Amino acid sequence: MRDVAVVGVGMTKFGELWETPLRDLFAEAALACLKDAGVERGEVQSAYIGCMSGGLFVGQEHLASILCDYAGLNPMAATRVESACASGGAAFRAAWLEVASGASDFVLAGGVEKMNDGADATYCLATAADQEYEVYHGVTFPGLYAMIANAHMHKYGTTPQQLAAVAVKNHHNGTMNPHAQFSMEINIETVLKAVRVAEPLGLFDCSPVTDGAAALLLCPVEVAKELGKPLVKILGAGAATDTIALHDRADLAAIPVVGRAAQRAYEMAGVKPKDVDFCEVHDCFTIAEIVCTEELGLFERGRGGPAAAEGLTALDGKRPVNPSGGLKSKGHPVGATGCAQLVEVYQQLTGRAGKRQIKSPRLGLAQNMGGSGGSATVHILEVNR
Amino acid sequence: MRDVAVVGVGMTKFGELWETPLRDLFAEAALACLKDAGVERGEVQSAYIGCMSGGLFVGQEHLASILCDYAGLNPMAATRVESACASGGAAFRAAWLEVASGASDFVLAGGVEKMNDGADATYCLATAADQEYEVYHGVTFPGLYAMIANAHMHKYGTTPQQLAAVAVKNHHNGTMNPHAQFSMEINIETVLKAVRVAEPLGLFDCSPVTDGAAALLLCPVEVAKELGKPLVKILGAGAATDTIALHDRADLAAIPVVGRAAQRAYEMAGVKPKDVDFCEVHDCFTIAEIVCTEELGLFERGRGGPAAAEGLTALDGKRPVNPSGGLKSKGHPVGATGCAQLVEVYQQLTGRAGKRQIKSPRLGLAQNMGGSGGSATVHILEVNR
Repeated sequence: MRDVAVVGVGMTKFGELWETPLRDLFAEAALACLKDAGVERGEVQSAYIGCMSGGLFVGQEHLASILCDYAGLNPMAATRVESACASGGAAFRAAWLEVASGASDFVLAGGVEKMNDGADATYCLATAADQEYEVYHGVTFPGLYAMIANAHMHKYGTTPQQLAAVAVKNHHNGTMNPHAQFSMEINIETVLKAVRVAEPLGLFDCSPVTDGAAALLLCPVEVAKELGKPLVKILGAGAATDTIALHDRADLAAIPVVGRAAQRAYEMAGVKPKDVDFCEVHDCFTIAEIVCTEELGLFERGRGGPAAAEGLTALDGKRPVNPSGGLKSKGHPVGATGCAQLVEVYQQLTGRAGKRQIKSPRLGLAQNMGGSGGSATVHILEVNR
Repeated sequence: MRDVAVVGVGMTKFGELWETPLRDLFAEAALACLKDAGVERGEVQSAYIGCMSGGLFVGQEHLASILCDYAGLNPMAATRVESACASGGAAFRAAWLEVASGASDFVLAGGVEKMNDGADATYCLATAADQEYEVYHGVTFPGLYAMIANAHMHKYGTTPQQLAAVAVKNHHNGTMNPHAQFSMEINIETVLKAVRVAEPLGLFDCSPVTDGAAALLLCPVEVAKELGKPLVKILGAGAATDTIALHDRADLAAIPVVGRAAQRAYEMAGVKPKDVDFCEVHDCFTIAEIVCTEELGLFERGRGGPAAAEGLTALDGKRPVNPSGGLKSKGHPVGATGCAQLVEVYQQLTGRAGKRQIKSPRLGLAQNMGGSGGSATVHILEVNR
């Protein structure tokens, strides 16, 4: 396998972008990415584009064709990949494999979702759960993650205050990210007093409905050196699946698919959790960040809540998590999220993260997750200065 | 890049399978494939599954998770890929790249679609066209291919009788395929007198609405040798995109994306069109087979129609096309079609095609297409006896 590097990134502002269609979102991110890399459109040989549901959100499938068309990337090879909210991570993995194989030198990994266009977002998102055994009975995602939260609280004593600490920290980080959907500070009281969505989760425990796109350009390390770019190498990649329905899992206080994907990524990278300088973690709900930090091995099981409350995951903490503001504050355009996490990892590793810059990180990790944990990807990137 | 082989195939019966859900279709094809290969579930490391629109047809996204879950393939890595009706071909290409890269030894390429479940199939399929500039104005796929047919007739003198010859030939081949949706012979009169759908295309110029799934198992050539399997090697692979909307193309009597994908596949394989012993071609409409055989270089431009009428594409002709019965007779579960074509190529190359067996073929080609030609894949397989 060839060693693969990231040589450019691009993303749109995340938010309720009512006047920007799906195709324009992708084109903006993809062209910004190529400009950042200093690579011409004609040099890119292939693209993988994560999108959860162009069909249900905006009535558009065949996304590889329409998105490359509007970005002026035809006639190159392109494929849309989908793994619900892990679609962006899956697109990055496929792009990595194509470059690693030797088939192509420049491959674009992108993600996009247009969620604000009139469709019923809650219904569309519910199609990431088991339609016949969960959704049919009325389950939606806040309900599924509320069950995980209740199980975690029961088993480990995790508190609403600890959940709230995740939201407060991520909103604080988001105030320093110009691409974030929300740019206001909140406090513990705001979260605890917010309208309830599904007990114990309130409005501020949930990530928002977001439009946006993100893209990265990948190439062999040898080509990246010729471009004179900072050397950000893909050191480890892991992906896994699990049962789609919560009722088929042995323990609701865990999300084992994340642990499995992480184990593969750590093994491939030859590193341990303590070696990673910061993580972008899939905080679709506050409880998800807590459980995922445990699955990633950043903290012992049951210690994710206290760690958040004690500030260990803050920008200046021992284990910074979601410096971008995470899904909670940056926003969660579901198909784009996995790529946006990797954009943040690249920006941090190359020292371009502005006010939210972590001091001289060497290793960054991005963890993306589909549904209530039916699929996950984990990527570990390293910068060589 | 490592050389990659196909070592097993599986598929369901194609048809209106009202009592079989999406998940069962995939599981049946995937497990039949592993049984055929003699490989255990636990040995498969990754899967790519083509599906055009689980969201619109049956309200289910996150297909990698649910399909692997029900096939008992968890916790392996899996991703759904989509490129409208070329989703199966795109899945096969991604699986090939993962094995070629060295990341995994056994990778499953599958495709599935559940089209008969109450959804409006014409609307769902239309999302493969440009939603804002074509579908909004009332265009559907029979209309788009009727425009291509009219342009081809006007430019080259192609006749309704020549279109009909494609349908008659494919129905004949389909009578010998136990997996085919239709198993009745038809004649030229049947096609010409059938109810009109979009002039000049009648009911028998159109492929049907179908449920079904197909799967192939890929591994390195060296591993295939150890398994003692017939050596069916992937010799060439090409993929391309084009404008999604017909109105952006220079010539409506051509489908250039197919020519581009084919050129890449021929170059990689180091073969010419005349070297290929038979082809599985994307005959979503009769005119599509005619134009695609021209784009693949089997016939000069404008000669596709006469070639069909003269029997050159028959099973015993000089250039057999669609020995399986094609989309027209075998059926067209859109996400599965690309894989089903490759299943037929494998069966023919290994001498397992029963009554429709072509005599000792060495090279087989499968061409899969999305929408009205917004994307395409071409794969060339070789058997070494």
